[in-house]
Amino acid sequence: MRKIILASLAAGVVSSAVVAAFAANTANPENLSPIYGVSIPDGYRKWELIAPAQEGEPLNELRAVLGNDIAVKAYRDGKLPFPDGTVLVKLAWKHTQSPDFESASIPGAATTVQVMVKDSKKYAASGGWGFGRFIDGKPADLAQHETCFACHEGRVKQRDYVFTKWAP
Amino acid sequence: MRKIILASLAAGVVSSAVVAAFAANTANPENLSPIYGVSIPDGYRKWELIAPAQEGEPLNELRAVLGNDIAVKAYRDGKLPFPDGTVLVKLAWKHTQSPDFESASIPGAATTVQVMVKDSKKYAASGGWGFGRFIDGKPADLAQHETCFACHEGRVKQRDYVFTKWAP
Repeated sequence: MRKIILASLAAGVVSSAVVAAFAANTANPENLSPIYGVSIPDGYRKWELIAPAQEGEPLNELRAVLGNDIAVKAYRDGKLPFPDGTVLVKLAWKHTQSPDFESASIPGAATTVQVMVKDSKKYAASGGWGFGRFIDGKPADLAQHETCFACHEGRVKQRDYVFTKWAP
Repeated sequence: MRKIILASLAAGVVSSAVVAAFAANTANPENLSPIYGVSIPDGYRKWELIAPAQEGEPLNELRAVLGNDIAVKAYRDGKLPFPDGTVLVKLAWKHTQSPDFESASIPGAATTVQVMVKDSKKYAASGGWGFGRFIDGKPADLAQHETCFACHEGRVKQRDYVFTKWAP
């Protein structure tokens, strides 16, 4: 707890929610994404579902975006831009034929975990968002992270750079 | 609270978790599924994700199964059969092309909400499970509910009649 408080004071602009979510993983620099220093947040698998999605070839994935409480409240309130402290996590799996039902397909092997963290001051140069793309729990390389913001900016700037809409 | 306690005592075999989850909706018989008397549980949209799925034509849906705490614990522990009080909710939406990304598809209009409730004594005749299929919040007709158990029994009896596996 002391570490979290000290980190909050030191960072100043970073909300305590963001610090708390990332405190455990940020101790090891190997867990941080290039450029942004984003890590996989503790406990994200328990977060609320924002929406599932499907990605065609060549990735061929089923996906689900989960959000922390700040994210969910912003979605439910229809609030844009998302407030600082918003964290979104996209889980992805290979899109695989169900062995139990001919017309159904289901998650296969996990592929990537992708994270967006809103901190409008820390990430002012990228629309207020920090990005992290993780494979087997480790950050992808610099080149992959150089493409994140340009794509979000080019396609969904009008929705505060976020692709995923709430699934009712 | 008094209603919940009285209902628990009256039902005897029904766990308090199940009763609590369904207390609000069961007041109105119009909200109950035929055969099983299952209703849409309060607050289910906040439950943890078990897994997404995709269903091909003719339904053409993206889906996500959420589970209550009892369900999630059983999945995480790899416990079969699921304990009484387990509730699973499958949300489904039309599988729709993303307007923002050529290779992605996303949830469109919501189609059905489907519920499975485990109560091994109350639902002894259907593997311990009660089923509910809801369209626009109202139960589907008797004919649709007559098909639930036969299909689950024919295909996934070995997994306690549950299709969905945990997405890691």
